[in-house]
Amino acid sequence: MGEDTLNKKYKCIVAYDGTSYAGSQIQPQEKTIQGELEAALAAIHKGALVRITMSGRTDAGVHARGQVFHFESSLAIPVSNWVKALNRLLPPDIRIKEVSEVALDFHARFDAVQKEYRYFIYTTQAEDPFRRLYSYHYPYSLSLSALKQAGQLLVGTHNFTAFTSARTEVQDKVRTIYQLDCQQAEDNLVISIVGDGFLYNMVRIIVGTLLEVGQGRKTVKDIELALTAGERDLLGRTAPPHGLYLWRVDYPDEENTLTE
Amino acid sequence: MGEDTLNKKYKCIVAYDGTSYAGSQIQPQEKTIQGELEAALAAIHKGALVRITMSGRTDAGVHARGQVFHFESSLAIPVSNWVKALNRLLPPDIRIKEVSEVALDFHARFDAVQKEYRYFIYTTQAEDPFRRLYSYHYPYSLSLSALKQAGQLLVGTHNFTAFTSARTEVQDKVRTIYQLDCQQAEDNLVISIVGDGFLYNMVRIIVGTLLEVGQGRKTVKDIELALTAGERDLLGRTAPPHGLYLWRVDYPDEENTLTE
Repeated sequence: MGEDTLNKKYKCIVAYDGTSYAGSQIQPQEKTIQGELEAALAAIHKGALVRITMSGRTDAGVHARGQVFHFESSLAIPVSNWVKALNRLLPPDIRIKEVSEVALDFHARFDAVQKEYRYFIYTTQAEDPFRRLYSYHYPYSLSLSALKQAGQLLVGTHNFTAFTSARTEVQDKVRTIYQLDCQQAEDNLVISIVGDGFLYNMVRIIVGTLLEVGQGRKTVKDIELALTAGERDLLGRTAPPHGLYLWRVDYPDEENTLTE
Repeated sequence: MGEDTLNKKYKCIVAYDGTSYAGSQIQPQEKTIQGELEAALAAIHKGALVRITMSGRTDAGVHARGQVFHFESSLAIPVSNWVKALNRLLPPDIRIKEVSEVALDFHARFDAVQKEYRYFIYTTQAEDPFRRLYSYHYPYSLSLSALKQAGQLLVGTHNFTAFTSARTEVQDKVRTIYQLDCQQAEDNLVISIVGDGFLYNMVRIIVGTLLEVGQGRKTVKDIELALTAGERDLLGRTAPPHGLYLWRVDYPDEENTLTE
């Protein structure tokens, strides 16, 4: 039997500051999260290419607290050593948080059952040099109750055609949002959205629209109409990437995780 | 009478993210806080040099939440417009927070009566991509009570010769620390120090030493001895710049501030 039969599969949780990356997905001539992760894996595997598969893409400038990817390796590295081995080689704005061995049929994208995104906003009049890369500066007074009410309209299973960029090639635009929460603490606002999947730009269009509802520039009626008519124009601007975090990716159960 | 008699003096509070600056003080060929501020002022003054005077220097990589500087101008700009005028020209990692008109004898450095510095530390095992530029990663368990006890030794008027770099040219090394607090919230630790003035690297040597006391690698006795003997070697390492913030600069009273 060849070496392949000795392959082990690993599930990794990774956090990254997306500020200086052209997105998660590998692209020629661009600094990407996947590029950095595969370079670290190649260094561990004596230069051999080790492909990773992520739960999904994040755009340029978008952050992650709990992105998930998998890879296979035939190296006899104990599972508990992978975190250190990878972090030693990765830049400080990408940090592996957890590595576990999983069944060979585990798939970071296809097996994901739900994802949580969080979007951070701050509403002080002045820009804050310390939040500028990690939270969206929106210096307007917002009605939290209007924002929450509009958010509740989106919970459930809907055709989200209006909530995606025209560039989207995906055919099926029906998605389910399980939960949408808006929390305010002093001048910080966090919108968290849990769903079974998200279309391109969907979270950022939702956030941009909710903020305009909070400001009184859009109404709950606009959202209802957009859901029915599927028209992007009825909604607010796409919120910028730097307030957005892929917070968590959930898998059906932990039975895929093999204990050592 | 010349234009000089029309000069007005302004006191400004500025926050900056020191990450990409070679310190606060202007230096040829380097990106500095003073350089950026004077460039913005020059742009407003049709290219004329307008010197600023800061309350004191901050080192490369050190941040400020409330640095103070003054400048003079003969332009007829209402005091309430200066914040916007400057922020429009400054990079996003430098933000003017307040501008007030002050008496012509106000001096940002000589009139400062006390300063507060804060030093942020986080103690999680893993590095955090989102705190890496703004807090010192110190992944060790610390005794908060030992740290606080050691901190109390430094409160009062002492000769801080041991607590500065050998490079210091200042003769008088006696300073008074009015207050030294250590606060912990989950995995974040903040050490705040209020004093009448600080020697070069003094806060960072205090912090580095307190952390080693918290770890059990230095003792309260070492600090006592260092204060008496003036020996730098008895103390801990100089903590890195990126955890340090010039938090606040206080002036004797607000009578210098002219109301419009």
